[in-house]
Order: sequence, then structure tokens, then C-alpha cells
Amino acid sequence: MTVPSAGAWTLHPDRALPADAVTRDIARTVYAQTRDLPIVSMHGHVDAAALNADAHFGDPAEVFVVPDHYLVRMIVSQGVPHDALGVPRKDGGAVETDPRAIWRTFCANWKLYRGTPTRYWLEHVFVEVFGLSARPSAETADTLYDEISAKLATDEYRPLALFDRFDLEILATTDPATATLSDHAALAERGWGQRIVPTFRPDALLFVDRDGWADDVRLLAERADVAVDSYTGYLRALEQRRRAFVAAGARATDHGHLLADTTPLSDADAARIFDAALRGEVTAAEATAFSGHMLTEMARMSTEDGLTMQLHPGVARNHSGSVFAARGADVGYDIPVQAEYTYALRPLLERFGHDPHLRLIVFTIDETVFSRELAPLAGVYPAMKLGAPWWFLDSPDGMRRYRELVTETAGFYNTTGFVDDTRAFFSIPARHDLSRRIDAGYLARLVAEHRLELDEAVEVAQDLAYHLPKAAYPALG
Amino acid sequence: MTVPSAGAWTLHPDRALPADAVTRDIARTVYAQTRDLPIVSMHGHVDAAALNADAHFGDPAEVFVVPDHYLVRMIVSQGVPHDALGVPRKDGGAVETDPRAIWRTFCANWKLYRGTPTRYWLEHVFVEVFGLSARPSAETADTLYDEISAKLATDEYRPLALFDRFDLEILATTDPATATLSDHAALAERGWGQRIVPTFRPDALLFVDRDGWADDVRLLAERADVAVDSYTGYLRALEQRRRAFVAAGARATDHGHLLADTTPLSDADAARIFDAALRGEVTAAEATAFSGHMLTEMARMSTEDGLTMQLHPGVARNHSGSVFAARGADVGYDIPVQAEYTYALRPLLERFGHDPHLRLIVFTIDETVFSRELAPLAGVYPAMKLGAPWWFLDSPDGMRRYRELVTETAGFYNTTGFVDDTRAFFSIPARHDLSRRIDAGYLARLVAEHRLELDEAVEVAQDLAYHLPKAAYPALG
Amino acid sequence: MTVPSAGAWTLHPDRALPADAVTRDIARTVYAQTRDLPIVSMHGHVDAAALNADAHFGDPAEVFVVPDHYLVRMIVSQGVPHDALGVPRKDGGAVETDPRAIWRTFCANWKLYRGTPTRYWLEHVFVEVFGLSARPSAETADTLYDEISAKLATDEYRPLALFDRFDLEILATTDPATATLSDHAALAERGWGQRIVPTFRPDALLFVDRDGWADDVRLLAERADVAVDSYTGYLRALEQRRRAFVAAGARATDHGHLLADTTPLSDADAARIFDAALRGEVTAAEATAFSGHMLTEMARMSTEDGLTMQLHPGVARNHSGSVFAARGADVGYDIPVQAEYTYALRPLLERFGHDPHLRLIVFTIDETVFSRELAPLAGVYPAMKLGAPWWFLDSPDGMRRYRELVTETAGFYNTTGFVDDTRAFFSIPARHDLSRRIDAGYLARLVAEHRLELDEAVEVAQDLAYHLPKAAYPALG
Repeated sequence: MTVPSAGAWTLHPDRALPADAVTRDIARTVYAQTRDLPIVSMHGHVDAAALNADAHFGDPAEVFVVPDHYLVRMIVSQGVPHDALGVPRKDGGAVETDPRAIWRTFCANWKLYRGTPTRYWLEHVFVEVFGLSARPSAETADTLYDEISAKLATDEYRPLALFDRFDLEILATTDPATATLSDHAALAERGWGQRIVPTFRPDALLFVDRDGWADDVRLLAERADVAVDSYTGYLRALEQRRRAFVAAGARATDHGHLLADTTPLSDADAARIFDAALRGEVTAAEATAFSGHMLTEMARMSTEDGLTMQLHPGVARNHSGSVFAARGADVGYDIPVQAEYTYALRPLLERFGHDPHLRLIVFTIDETVFSRELAPLAGVYPAMKLGAPWWFLDSPDGMRRYRELVTETAGFYNTTGFVDDTRAFFSIPARHDLSRRIDAGYLARLVAEHRLELDEAVEVAQDLAYHLPKAAYPALG
Repeated sequence: MTVPSAGAWTLHPDRALPADAVTRDIARTVYAQTRDLPIVSMHGHVDAAALNADAHFGDPAEVFVVPDHYLVRMIVSQGVPHDALGVPRKDGGAVETDPRAIWRTFCANWKLYRGTPTRYWLEHVFVEVFGLSARPSAETADTLYDEISAKLATDEYRPLALFDRFDLEILATTDPATATLSDHAALAERGWGQRIVPTFRPDALLFVDRDGWADDVRLLAERADVAVDSYTGYLRALEQRRRAFVAAGARATDHGHLLADTTPLSDADAARIFDAALRGEVTAAEATAFSGHMLTEMARMSTEDGLTMQLHPGVARNHSGSVFAARGADVGYDIPVQAEYTYALRPLLERFGHDPHLRLIVFTIDETVFSRELAPLAGVYPAMKLGAPWWFLDSPDGMRRYRELVTETAGFYNTTGFVDDTRAFFSIPARHDLSRRIDAGYLARLVAEHRLELDEAVEVAQDLAYHLPKAAYPALG
Repeated sequence: MTVPSAGAWTLHPDRALPADAVTRDIARTVYAQTRDLPIVSMHGHVDAAALNADAHFGDPAEVFVVPDHYLVRMIVSQGVPHDALGVPRKDGGAVETDPRAIWRTFCANWKLYRGTPTRYWLEHVFVEVFGLSARPSAETADTLYDEISAKLATDEYRPLALFDRFDLEILATTDPATATLSDHAALAERGWGQRIVPTFRPDALLFVDRDGWADDVRLLAERADVAVDSYTGYLRALEQRRRAFVAAGARATDHGHLLADTTPLSDADAARIFDAALRGEVTAAEATAFSGHMLTEMARMSTEDGLTMQLHPGVARNHSGSVFAARGADVGYDIPVQAEYTYALRPLLERFGHDPHLRLIVFTIDETVFSRELAPLAGVYPAMKLGAPWWFLDSPDGMRRYRELVTETAGFYNTTGFVDDTRAFFSIPARHDLSRRIDAGYLARLVAEHRLELDEAVEVAQDLAYHLPKAAYPALG
């Protein structure tokens, strides 16, 4: 290890490892065995079109600030308006368009991220990926802007070059059920089909009282080439689209519901509600019941086509109506709410919980159910696995607490290992690196407390970093 | 301390103590003062008949695998069917009956228990009680089977010999309200009456819409020799049975309810519901209300006969209907649910919370209420104590979190100290040992942070391990 | 630092800092930079009349035991009756009146406080403020009583002298909306107006089905000199009183509600409910709806007059009806209950969450909402800040958990820094000292884990201890 010259910005090799000397020493040993494993990134929100285009990224503001709701929300929380960060308005009203100004606002607010995972991720990106010379600040903003811009202009910083540099073995995108998957097809033609795969996300079609639902249903019919004028046609079209996703390399579905309810309806009731929805006459209660019913239907389809089923309830989307009206979704106003799992998942688990063809992964953003509900459920039903700590919780202490709350009841092997949930392509390696460090630290504590042998800790660490995610999302067909 | 010969399987003397050197050193000192205290085991599920028979235990599969829902659920969660573990079917269908095959399946899956308390308990049993030569694995399975079998065939491994070896000062069994208590009587005749005592568990009689409730009521009448054709007769019969339990050495009652509700009914309403139940015409809502009412009645009876009252709400039993139909209860499908305590316990505490004749111990499996509800309640009502972390939570980190969440509000002296909840007779010493280590570690941290003196920590540790459980369940009559 | 003579009672300089040597060393450095900062105490329950009178305090029992619900509840929980602690009865019935006897009971029960913040606070007060010679015990009780009494008799221990000695830069009292504020006026005349300020607490006027509400409304009209015979008059009177508080130096309002609901009513509905309340015909549901509505009205008024708005829901007051009937409020029976925030605060945040004129501080006593609801909300809405851990949670581990649960999502700068919640004047420095130590320990861990630089940690620690509370409660007018 070379000693950095004075003043250079480097990251400490022991960052995010436990402070205690005995435990840190063990953690170093464990982490050394996972640090260089390839990245398996099975749940994310990177744009397939951008990967397919493989064009140079835009400016630093466009890459790092404007689309990152973590960054934006923190600065907004201190009273800086969205406009100053260049977050676009739906009405086309004026917002800051000078990327350098946006970047300066971000750099000047760097101290807000103290203690947050955003800070960890960005430091990793700025040092490891871009080799920046200094920390962000009002003073360094322009220099950093220029340093990043220069790198982004090179071919080494185009998406697919970075994909290799990041050692991404596979990356899953998230795609509406009505997606053409044309970008994936084009990528496959160029040999990327095993490494960039779509994920089937049918939420828009399952919430039958959504604005625009009828349009999406028409699009579904078109894409599937199946008439969707009845509940039966709707199921057939969904099944067809799932097959198309499987053919395009998909390994999973993804379901974001407010609640975890999976109570099935009778076919007759489901059909009745569907017909009412087509007529625009569905009630909110019926729509909610239908969406819960469809989760069990999706599980049924998964037992048939093999797609891993991902469920993540418990987020109230677009909490601020005025911000949503002005800016749309995904600008930092999705706020967790409590959700119940023991009763809610019971119907689905009753029918498919022991079905060897189902893999159900449940994510949550609510720590209170880890030890009370989710670990006990995942610790007995073979079809269910517990996903990684998600969203606000894929943070150093959040991930540590997750292991502490889950492991004693569910063990390690009823979790999926690390699954990132990333919109920001550049931060994928940072997130996996952080996860490997935190798991190393947790495992090191078990070793230091003589609750686990060192060779076991290393094996578990490698499983969590690499083998378990691969097993949770197997290739199909 | 002798150095173990190479290859022998030994346990580290510092296992489950904190990793930090300063804290560990203090923890060692504290633990050394509790390690050899006798075991007071006031809440468990060991079978009185087995103790009375004092016959040799069965084979390793029968002793360690088949009846242990912790073990079974973990292996089932990885897709191994119950049949392969020899869990019997109610329909008498074929399951694995070769104990060696069952044992091999268990050993081959040993890695699943990494990080779980099951691992800690079994290591303790296998090394400290059986002196096994190697860790379980597919390779060692047969050897270990033979080693265990050889020990179990000796008289030193019969139940009552182990009872002495384990230094069990007293063990409470759990018995239905309609139990004859004949095993306890026989044990008492042989001089074990002060050391093996029954616990009065009337759940079956309090849930008046249960299948089989009427039969249990008839049995109650018979055992109590009291006519139970009215609510009044029912109360008298329950009181009589409680007296019989007290006469047989019982110190406590035990109540497993879904919710903690203790709202009393008027005598007229209680009688009306009871009569409806006798006619088989009770509604679910009435039955639930009646069970809550009966908790306050049980508290009233405790103020009269002195039995400590144990309440543990918040578990949805037999979550999988299909597994319950096939295998019955207690095979790993009891899943926690959220329960409210502040309002729910209010009626009982309003009436008896300051009554010096009541000792109410509340257990939970939901960590979220420790600091929010249970510690504040136990920290003011003299009749209420907070039980030990229960079931999934009597784990190293679970017990540590319990102390962290409870102590600052309720102190140590409003908890009961360690109360195990054990079906597996062999693991009782392991559980108490683990608890003493975790409490030593927690106390050591307080000492290391100069929040407690060392002599105080030792006194508290001894209180938690021994004196508080004895005080919470005093001998009666 | 002088070495204390053998046997003297001293406090360890590292108390409440982390045990791990590396982390402790950093924590010492951080704490050294906050230890001597002035105290900003913006939320408390010290009596303005006592400060204004500036008379000698009473006896040790009157000062430390009888009015302190933390102390009283812990001793009561062990079966000592309130009477023995001199807690007065509303019916005037006999209670212990000998302060020395009360003090002895307290000292004899000293061990109950092991592991509690009460212990930390009292040790600080007894050693740092009173220089007592020994720990409390049955044996030392009389000596300590005399030592304390001797000090209290000196002028150096009168309230305003201590105010200076404690380096209290500013202290906020809590005052009903109908307070005359005469004590504050008198203090202001003597030059204390900038350092002792009132807080506007209108709860009594917002719960329109309270016993005595109508009397309070009449008092409101009188104090405000506004006719309150309609909802409009009621609003005008409240606005007038808020202005009077602002004129008297107030910086904040304080709202203790059972739930966090802020759903507004139409003016017509609000007026209808108000009129019904005046006639004594309001229903419980209407009263609850009105109180939620009034929170949003209070927020609206805050945007107009600048008072910081403090909200702390989630406590069931006076849990024991019999104790409340006998002794009144604030004797240890306020028990937390679960409350929901994401939906409940939405109406208020929808209207005023981005209003630069509102500062809303939310406190809770329920740890489960820190990471799930409150940190995500405070991490985006500029008008909302997350208050310090409150009541049962301003304890060493409680405050540490708060930082761990909050920081990664909300950062440091969406919290208010330390805000104590103290009735016990003598313990104010102890509470601030403890908070500074715990924050130093948390920050030191981030530094030790290379997640934060040391200079950043020092800056954050100073912000949390001093600058953030000042910014959250700015001077008005």
C-alpha cells in the first residue's frame, strides 16, 4: 500500500470497518476475500436506453445532482428550492439550467451529507472512479466540475466501458410490463444479453384506478397482441408479456405496493372488478383489493414461468401533492409508512409458500418488521427470502442493524445477500463495496465473540456478496 | 486454563462476551460470579411425564431434531420437506423413520445455523454435555450419532441424573388446567416436589370458540369436581383447579393470547357469552372479548391464591394452514404479530396494578414495544414485571438489545431476570449460560463507560441470573 | 486535573464516552470542544415564578424527590406507596411530611436507578453541583441531607445565581396560553428578559371536550381582551395571545397531542364544532378532529408571527385513573403509545412544509418512527426539523440510538441539536453534558470508521450542542 502524498484526497482502506481493533483486524481479513468479487446487480433503475446508446454522459450536474433524489432532497430540506437544483417543472417553468451553477450549489452544501450513505457513495465515486483532487466545497466546485467533465468526455467513461471497469457481471434494469424491450434486444445483438437484463414491473397495470390505467391496458394488449377486454384476456396478456421478458433474459418481476396484502379474490369477483375498471367505475376499495389479489396471481405465474418475484411494500409515494403536481415523481417525497406482513402475506404463502417453483423476495424500508415478522416468515417458508435492506436502509448502520435483527432468526441463507437499488450508475460499485464492508464487520464481530469460525465467516461473506444474489435470481430458460 | 489438544472440539471460554478488550475483561470478571449459580427455570415446556419416568432418552434424532421447531424450521426453510426430518403426519402418512437418516440431514445442514442461537445452544450441548469430537457435518454425522447414542445409553444421561448435573434448583413445567398432575404427584413422593413444579395454563378453557372447548369444559368439571353449567360454576372450577396446582407446588399461571386486551365484561355479559358458548352459538367477537375479560379474572384470582401471572401475547399460531392440517401445532409456523399494550393492559392494571398480591409478568416477541410501552409500564406499576426476551429473542443480540431498550426506563429490578422458555431439556444450561454472558457483557459496558461500579455490576448480574427469577416466582402456601 | 483524595466521590472524566480505546480517544477530543459551550435550553418546565422569586430552594426532598416523576415512579414500581414519598393527595389525606424520612426512602432505594439516566443526572448534580461526600444509601442519607441543606441555604444556590453558574445562555419556560406572563415581565424589568423566555402552550384551549375548557375560554377572552363567543373570536384571541407571548420574548409554541393528525376542517365545520363545544354538546370525535385542525391553524399562525412550532404526540396521559384521581397529573403515569406521522402530518406539510416562515419541530417518544417516518420527512421538508430524543429517550443509549436511526437519512442538519425537557432545574447541566458526551461518542465512531473527518466531527458536535438549537428557536421581533 503506497502512502498518499500530502494533500491528495484518498479513501482510508479500513473505512466502514468496525472501530474496535480486534474486530477490525478480522473484518479486514474477511473483506479482503470479497472485495474483488464481480458485482451482481439484480435490482436497479439504470436506464437501458442509456446503456444501449452508450453515449458519453452529460455534465456533472446532469449526472450527479439533478436525477438523484437522495442528493436533491437533502439540499431541498435546508430550504434551497428545487429550481436552483435544476429539477425540471412539468409546466415548463424556468429552473436553473446552468450546470455549473447547479454543481456549485451541490458542492457548497456538501456538509449536509455528513453521516449519510450519500456521502460514502459519492466519496467512493469521486475518488475511486474520477480521482478528484479535493472534497466538494464552494471553493473547489469549479475545479471539480472541470475534472469530472474532462473524464466524462473520454471513451473510458462511456457506459459500457464503465460496465466492464466496474466488473459488473450482470445488471438488471426495471421496465414497465408494456416495454418494447428494444434496447435490451439491441444490446443482446451486441453480445450484452447475458449481462444486461430487464425486470418485469407491472405496477401500472395492477392498480386499476390509476389515472392512465386504461391507456396502459390498451398498450398491454398491443404489446402482447392479445385482446384485453376481459379479466381472462388481461391475465393472458400479462402471462404473454412475462414470457417476452423471460425471452429477453429477465430473471425477476418487481412489485411496489402500498401494503403487502395478498388476499385472493374469486375469479368472478376479480372479473367483476376488472370490468368495472374498464368502464371507469371502480371504487378505491375494489382497486386495492384487486391489487392484492394480483400479487397472488403474480406468484402463481412465477411458479409457471420461473421469474423471481420481488415485493417491496410500505412507501407512500409523492407525499407532497404540490411538488408532485409541479415536478412529478421521484424527486424525494416518497415516505415510508407502516405495513403488516404476517397476516398480509399469509394467503400467498398458504398457496405457494412451499412451492419449489416460487422464489419470493420481500424488501422493506421499515426496520420494525425485520425481527418481528419478516425474519420469522423467511425462516420457515422455503419460497420466501428476505431482501437486502432497501432504499434509506442500504446505509452503513442500516445494513448492520439489518444483519443484527435478521440473522438470529432467519440465518444468512434465507436472505438474498446484497441487492442494490440504484438509479445512479456510477454509485453501483460504491454500494456493493459498502455492503461487503458492513457484512465483513458484522461477521467479524461474530468471530471475535467466538460465535463463528473465521473460515465460516469468509464463506458467508462470499455468499452474501456474490453467490446468494446469483442463486436468488437464476437464469431461466 | 489448559490448552486443548489439537483437533479437539472445545468452546472458547470468552464466547458471547464483547469483543472490545477493555469491556471483555470486565465482562469476564462479572460472568465469573454468575457462571456457577444454580439454575432457576420457571417457564418451560419439558414434559413432566418424561421426568417422572426417568427412562433413557431416545436416539439423537428423537432427542435433538424432530421435536425442536427451531431446528426443523430452519432446514424446512431451505426446501427440505418435513418428511425428511421425520416430523410425523397426522394422517399417519409415511415420513422418514430412520433416525440416522434424519440425523444426517441435520448434520449436513449445520451451516444454516451460523449466527443463530440454535448454533450456540447446540455447540454448548454437544461439547459441554456430550463431549463430542467434531462439529456436525455430512462427514461426521455417523460418528456423532454413535457418540451421542453411547452416552444416552448410560444412566448418567437419564433425565433426573442430568437434572442434578445441570444444577437445576427448580424447573417449572407447563400443564393444562385440566391436567391430573399425577406425574408431579409421583415426583413429589420421591422427593422432587420442590424442584419440579407444574404451571397452570388455562388457555384451552378461555377461548370459548375453540374446537373441543366443550370437551375441555367437561374435563374441567370432572377434574375440579364442580358442575360447570354456568359462568359461576366455571369460575369456581377454575379457582379449584388453581388451588390444586398450588397444592402441587405450582408458582405461576401462563397465558398465551393473540392480543393483550384485558377489558373486563360485566358479570352479566360474561355469563351470557359463556352460556352461548355452551350452546355452541358464540361469535368470534364474543369469544375474543371473553378471553380478554378472563385475563382480568385471572389477575383477580392471582391476588387471592398468589400464583404469579405470566402473559405472552402477539403470536399468530399455525400460520400455514396446510402444514397445521398435515402435522399439527409447534412445527415452526408460529409467527409474531404486532400487539398493543398501553391501552390493552390498562383495565387490568387499573384494578390490580397496585395490588401487593399480584405479580404480573409480561413477555413479548416484539422488540418495538420494549422501550415504547412495556418498560414505561413496568417502570411504574408495582404489580407488573417485564419478562425476559422470549422465543426468537433469547439470542445473543436479542438479549443485548432487550437490556439496552429496557434498562434506561425500567431499570433492572422491574425485570424478572432470565426466564428460559425451553422445550429442549438438554439446552437449558446453554440458555442460562448464554444469558449470563450477555448480561455480563451489557453490564461490563456500563462499567467501562463509568455508568456503573464493578461491584454493582456483579450484584446486578447475580440478581438477574438467580435472585430475581426466584423472587418473581415465590413458593406459595 | 487534580487527583481526588481516596474515598472522595468523583465522576470519571470519560463517563458516557465509548468503551473502545480508539473511539474513546477521538470522543475525548470532540467532547473537549463542546464541554464548555453555554447552555441553550429551549424546552423545559422550570417554573418562571420560582426564578422570579429567586428565593432559596426548599429541603432536599422537596427539591429532588417529590416533584420528580422519574424518581417517584421508579420507587413506586417497587411497591413503595406514593404516600411514603410525600406525593400530595388531592383530598388532602395524610402523606409523609418529614422531608428527612422521604429523603431516606429515596437514598435507601438508590440501587433501583442503576443503568438509568436518572442515576447519571443525579450523580452529576450531587458531585458537580453539591460536592457531596458519598453515594446515596440508607447509611449516608442523613449526612447527605445535611450537606445539601447547608448548600441550599447559601445565596450561591439561589436560582438566578445557579442560572449564571450553569452558564445558561437562555432558558424557555412552558406557559399556558392564558398565562399573565407577569413573572416574565418582572424578570425582564430586572434584565433577564433575553435569558428567561416563555413558551406558548395552548393545549388546554385546543381540546374542546376537556373538563374546564369553557372556563379556560373565558380566561382566554379576558387575557386577550377579545370576545370569544365564536370560532372567529377564538382564533383572534389566540393570535392576540401569541403576539403577547412574542412581545414577552417567546420563541416557540408547544403542542402535546395524543396523535399527530393535522387534518384541517372547513371554516364552517370548525365553527360548528366550536359552537357545539361552547354549548357543551361536542362529541369526542368532533373534539379530536378539532384539535387536529387546530394544529394546522397553529402552523398558519406560526408563519405569520414567527413562533417555532413544537409538536410531541404519542403519550397516553394519566394511565392510572385511580392515581390520577388521588394525586393528579405528572406523577409517573404518562405512558407512550404508537402514533403515525407520515399520513398525519401530510395536511400540515402540504400547506406549510415549504413555507420559509415555518419552523416545525417534531418530538417523539417512540423510537420505531425515527428511521421509518420522521427522518424521511425531516430529510425533505424544509419547514420540519426533528427534535431531540425526548423524555424516556434522553438517556445515554436512547440518544445514541436516535443518532444511529436518524442521521443516515436526515443528516445532522435536519435535527435541532440537543433540546432538553427538564422540570428539574438542577439537572439541566447534567442533561446537556450527557448529550454532548453521547454525540461526541457517536461522532467519534464515524471518525474511527473513516466516515467523517475529525474537524467535521468537532464542527458538528458544536452545532448540535449550541448552534442548531439557537437556530431552531431564533429571537423574534
